[in-house]
Amino acid sequence: MSARLAEMTTLEATRAAEDGTIVVLPVGAFEQHGAALPMATDQIRAEALADAVAEALPGRVIIGPGVPVGVSPHHQAFAGTVSLRPALFAAVVREYVESLAAHGWRRFLVITGHGGNNSTLGTIAQDLLRDRPDIEFAWAPVTALAKDAVAEMELSAISGHSGEAETSQMLHVAPDLVRHDLLAPGTTTPDELDPFARLARSVSHPAVAVAYDRLSPTGVLGDPRRASAEHGRAIYAEATDRLVAFIKEWLDT
Amino acid sequence: MSARLAEMTTLEATRAAEDGTIVVLPVGAFEQHGAALPMATDQIRAEALADAVAEALPGRVIIGPGVPVGVSPHHQAFAGTVSLRPALFAAVVREYVESLAAHGWRRFLVITGHGGNNSTLGTIAQDLLRDRPDIEFAWAPVTALAKDAVAEMELSAISGHSGEAETSQMLHVAPDLVRHDLLAPGTTTPDELDPFARLARSVSHPAVAVAYDRLSPTGVLGDPRRASAEHGRAIYAEATDRLVAFIKEWLDT
Amino acid sequence: MSARLAEMTTLEATRAAEDGTIVVLPVGAFEQHGAALPMATDQIRAEALADAVAEALPGRVIIGPGVPVGVSPHHQAFAGTVSLRPALFAAVVREYVESLAAHGWRRFLVITGHGGNNSTLGTIAQDLLRDRPDIEFAWAPVTALAKDAVAEMELSAISGHSGEAETSQMLHVAPDLVRHDLLAPGTTTPDELDPFARLARSVSHPAVAVAYDRLSPTGVLGDPRRASAEHGRAIYAEATDRLVAFIKEWLDT
Amino acid sequence: MSARLAEMTTLEATRAAEDGTIVVLPVGAFEQHGAALPMATDQIRAEALADAVAEALPGRVIIGPGVPVGVSPHHQAFAGTVSLRPALFAAVVREYVESLAAHGWRRFLVITGHGGNNSTLGTIAQDLLRDRPDIEFAWAPVTALAKDAVAEMELSAISGHSGEAETSQMLHVAPDLVRHDLLAPGTTTPDELDPFARLARSVSHPAVAVAYDRLSPTGVLGDPRRASAEHGRAIYAEATDRLVAFIKEWLDT
Amino acid sequence: MSARLAEMTTLEATRAAEDGTIVVLPVGAFEQHGAALPMATDQIRAEALADAVAEALPGRVIIGPGVPVGVSPHHQAFAGTVSLRPALFAAVVREYVESLAAHGWRRFLVITGHGGNNSTLGTIAQDLLRDRPDIEFAWAPVTALAKDAVAEMELSAISGHSGEAETSQMLHVAPDLVRHDLLAPGTTTPDELDPFARLARSVSHPAVAVAYDRLSPTGVLGDPRRASAEHGRAIYAEATDRLVAFIKEWLDT
Amino acid sequence: MSARLAEMTTLEATRAAEDGTIVVLPVGAFEQHGAALPMATDQIRAEALADAVAEALPGRVIIGPGVPVGVSPHHQAFAGTVSLRPALFAAVVREYVESLAAHGWRRFLVITGHGGNNSTLGTIAQDLLRDRPDIEFAWAPVTALAKDAVAEMELSAISGHSGEAETSQMLHVAPDLVRHDLLAPGTTTPDELDPFARLARSVSHPAVAVAYDRLSPTGVLGDPRRASAEHGRAIYAEATDRLVAFIKEWLDT
Repeated sequence: MSARLAEMTTLEATRAAEDGTIVVLPVGAFEQHGAALPMATDQIRAEALADAVAEALPGRVIIGPGVPVGVSPHHQAFAGTVSLRPALFAAVVREYVESLAAHGWRRFLVITGHGGNNSTLGTIAQDLLRDRPDIEFAWAPVTALAKDAVAEMELSAISGHSGEAETSQMLHVAPDLVRHDLLAPGTTTPDELDPFARLARSVSHPAVAVAYDRLSPTGVLGDPRRASAEHGRAIYAEATDRLVAFIKEWLDT
Repeated sequence: MSARLAEMTTLEATRAAEDGTIVVLPVGAFEQHGAALPMATDQIRAEALADAVAEALPGRVIIGPGVPVGVSPHHQAFAGTVSLRPALFAAVVREYVESLAAHGWRRFLVITGHGGNNSTLGTIAQDLLRDRPDIEFAWAPVTALAKDAVAEMELSAISGHSGEAETSQMLHVAPDLVRHDLLAPGTTTPDELDPFARLARSVSHPAVAVAYDRLSPTGVLGDPRRASAEHGRAIYAEATDRLVAFIKEWLDT
Repeated sequence: MSARLAEMTTLEATRAAEDGTIVVLPVGAFEQHGAALPMATDQIRAEALADAVAEALPGRVIIGPGVPVGVSPHHQAFAGTVSLRPALFAAVVREYVESLAAHGWRRFLVITGHGGNNSTLGTIAQDLLRDRPDIEFAWAPVTALAKDAVAEMELSAISGHSGEAETSQMLHVAPDLVRHDLLAPGTTTPDELDPFARLARSVSHPAVAVAYDRLSPTGVLGDPRRASAEHGRAIYAEATDRLVAFIKEWLDT
Repeated sequence: MSARLAEMTTLEATRAAEDGTIVVLPVGAFEQHGAALPMATDQIRAEALADAVAEALPGRVIIGPGVPVGVSPHHQAFAGTVSLRPALFAAVVREYVESLAAHGWRRFLVITGHGGNNSTLGTIAQDLLRDRPDIEFAWAPVTALAKDAVAEMELSAISGHSGEAETSQMLHVAPDLVRHDLLAPGTTTPDELDPFARLARSVSHPAVAVAYDRLSPTGVLGDPRRASAEHGRAIYAEATDRLVAFIKEWLDT
Repeated sequence: MSARLAEMTTLEATRAAEDGTIVVLPVGAFEQHGAALPMATDQIRAEALADAVAEALPGRVIIGPGVPVGVSPHHQAFAGTVSLRPALFAAVVREYVESLAAHGWRRFLVITGHGGNNSTLGTIAQDLLRDRPDIEFAWAPVTALAKDAVAEMELSAISGHSGEAETSQMLHVAPDLVRHDLLAPGTTTPDELDPFARLARSVSHPAVAVAYDRLSPTGVLGDPRRASAEHGRAIYAEATDRLVAFIKEWLDT
Repeated sequence: MSARLAEMTTLEATRAAEDGTIVVLPVGAFEQHGAALPMATDQIRAEALADAVAEALPGRVIIGPGVPVGVSPHHQAFAGTVSLRPALFAAVVREYVESLAAHGWRRFLVITGHGGNNSTLGTIAQDLLRDRPDIEFAWAPVTALAKDAVAEMELSAISGHSGEAETSQMLHVAPDLVRHDLLAPGTTTPDELDPFARLARSVSHPAVAVAYDRLSPTGVLGDPRRASAEHGRAIYAEATDRLVAFIKEWLDT
């Protein structure tokens, strides 16, 4: 049987809730990813990780409904981007959690393919802490779970959105959606950034929010030509291992 | 190229917006559909119709992001159901529309697989009328677009949710997700309803909101054993034709 | 004693709540009704029906506070129109219901003189279903309760707002507020509509929200010169009968 | 022609807006008024004053839609009371003002029959000052406009809600709705108050919010047997004069 | 030990809550006060009074967190003014009260240095009455507590914001923050007001909200050169006495 | 002249805005800090850093109003803690920014003494990016700006809230508010945490929100006896240097 609640019947859902499963919620973004990657890149990456984790832990987790659109105001200048305000994204995730808690689930893990959702996820956790102390809520961005695999890649001085690591993931999980012939370097060195955008990228500095069109005219940070499906596989392997270990430990508490 | 914006790059999105395409937004529900159909039934049905329309009108429509969870408080008693409040569902659709309008799109058609979203869609249209008179917004529930095909089916006296017509659609568009051996009649006659629920089903009466557990212990209205993929195909053919005609007329205004 | 709670004292209210009465809430609109009918047309029509029902069912229903302004963004282009956003209208009705539920009432029937409130009423019912399962909530638009009487009238091809049926009702319940000399045909045939507005009026099509100034330069659909007090009386008789039957059935559940 | 916008047609409304009329909005409450006065007492009193002012200033003011339910949480313990939260009441009045401003009106005077709306009216004025500096907004509670007439009455030591002055007004404007035989003294001296309620009534003290059931078991402050239609007439005469003078001065600025 | 909760540890807070202390919340504004007084004038004045009251009632009151920014849209034209909307200011105070109520406190007294917060404080009290009947909530503006001391001063015909009484208070509690050489008369007579602003200052009239730049080009009402530290001391002595008496009476109920 | 806007007059504010100064907003928390530190610890630390920065950059920055209460639901179990919801805290900061932007300021730096505000600050930045692209917004938590100085301290295995680094800061900036005799170790090793809390502290794991009473019975992480004013001075020196460098670079863009 699928681990996706979307594909379950209500009778199957009843049993899954009784089994004390952990609910994994894959959330993404609907935003520009340069000339070669599709809008849904972040959602696809989050769902692929959710699937991998569910496969590794049969009967211990279910995959709940996803949120296909995330918090992406910094990409709004690029056509196709759709964005929810932080408060709205938070309300959607909160309703998912409340609805599922009404059926008996108490543990939720959000996997976000989009780092721009992190702050909002933090605020959701804080509100749950106040209103629903009976619920345990965790969240993780995909790439951050695979630090070692990413460290082994040869990254540009500036690398990130639609760059080496992200493109590698897509080459692994959704190669058909990558426009291989359009992979091209975006901003790869600090001196290509405009002065304020450079400020945002300085180490140990305050955080600064900057629209992506100030970071890169093509919406790409790094050189995606260096990406490979193999790197992508390594990233997924590490991220999956880490989440599996985390969930096992959680189930034991 | 896919008509799904989710699979497009930002450059492709730019072109699609310039071409004056109509945006189709498939929205569904994440709710119980009895013992034989999955939670995502309504979303699957809406997306299948969006795909059919896009295929029939290449280059004239794009499919925007979906909303996988709808307004389903009446199904909350059944495990697995996830529901957004009307105001939250409205805010999500509104943000989709506003984000896409910022890129140049002005015409939006929501296809809803879930009738429970209708009222909320009506309120979204009213708010847009006030705030964004430059936007044209239309919406339609799947099954209502195929009255003739449904009329040709032999329906139970009580028929609806997860019944003959809906199951037929799933047998046509997602047969692998139907538990064929678990298809069983739900409430099929008025006298099986509790008195208040019966009130809600009377013709020419005021509208009454009733939780589905008062309508049917299994969450099914009608006898899905009478469903067939063929009926489903006829429903989709009619609904597609009707939407295609509508969109062509719209593009001509 | 009046059936209007507005005219009752608190002691009388206590008794009415103890008697298990049903609360009728008449809601309307404050919007243009062409050259001959007043802004309050919808509220007046709703209250007249509430009165008729209360008279027919002495001691079984009370009439609660009305909402004199409804959801009318489509009429905003015409001077005098006042409109509440759907979410605001919903909040007002909800507060009425919650306040009265605190005194013991559990059954509420909203009579709306304005079809533009229907979607919002639907969302109120859904929110109540979730938050207040102890409350029963029904709603009905006036004219839809009198299909037979309307069918007996000779309507224009296009007929509706401020047209034959609505003007007839006003001639019956508030003849002094009708400017008889200013009754004049508005839009009566589809070819007078602008193309997009015509789209909105097509049968079996998706729903489309259109501002009334695109439907008719005078804000009238149909030919109110064909209206008569007699038709109005027939409409009220039928609508009253239907509501009385509904309420009796409800009280028996 | 009526000065009530509710009774006007859209053509008449157009002319009234062009004439630079001031809009009077009568707002009230829907709350207990002891054993002898009806729920709608405050709305009735506000509308009567609006009518008197409109009659004295033909063609200079119009009466906009009323708000029949006000901010009455302090009366919620008494059956029949319906209350809006301050933020909701504010939103309703704000929407009235915004809708009418769209038609050209710029000057609004709220007459409130209910002192419990005063704070909320103050916050509306502050929000308008920020968002709509083009709008002029004034508000006044009925009884406060007739200090001299009230001073001439022989009031109890404790007098207020449903007491001498308010009952007099009702005897003047709506005598048929007064249960004359049920007029009875409520709380008339400080020592009948509970200690905390007494605190609320002390002069020069901080303000304290207290539920009315702590002030009086019957919901009455003062001795309404001392009321008379004549006093009511004097109160209305003074309040009308004061408002007329105010509006004339306003129209001259 | 300090009576300021801000300076207490959590253990000390536990004891203070157990002792049934009353919580004093000093709230102010962050707004222009003419050429001679600082933005924080109202907050400074409120805190000084809170301190005086706490000193007079050791162990009976604690001082909770302040709100340094109030509701000041009428001063927004003057540089430096920061303002919260009424609904936002209300939400902040409400959260303070709810947070502290969770630790056991039930009695709250807000001292506001800014009259512009009064309406909002009234609405907070009303919402608490509805939602938290277990909480007692009182509020008072500083200067209104010292009517006698103010009456003894020689005020200009127009006197108020940054005028004789307020400047005197600052000369008493924060003389170092007063620019003595810049004290200069602002608007001191009605004929200096613009016509609409004059309307707002008329006795027995409706209330009217007016931006301060229509009242005075320098943002000052009255002649602050007549202010003295001695007057300030008298105002504080009277206000303190009144609050102390009030609190003692309250603690006895 | 003080760099604090709170102490400026409106004329001084006008000049400061014209000078293109950067606005520093010090925000904190009002929460338990164990047996030895006061509720206002985080606000005091943020303001001290703001003062140091302003002193180092005379005429280049002003200090705007602070937010004395932050997002602290995880400390709510400890008496004295007052907390704002994330959405409310965000709204307050947003209003500060909008009010000051109306006077001409465009650059804002929030210094937060409380890490629990970080997520919310991130969401504020995202909303500003969308609504106010003309504004530049940066934010930084105090201790994170002094990584080197903290690294030189001998920290416990578990160290954080009210621990070595934070207590050192208080010993430097507000030694009179530290209860030196009550400094005592809290949780210092992972095995003192409950299992779920331990999960939250694991490296490279998903983030998990945990109430502080599950982390430490006294609300302290680390051993504050190892704190010293000298360490505090080093932390402030480093943090100040870093912010000063950042602001200079910013002013040059």
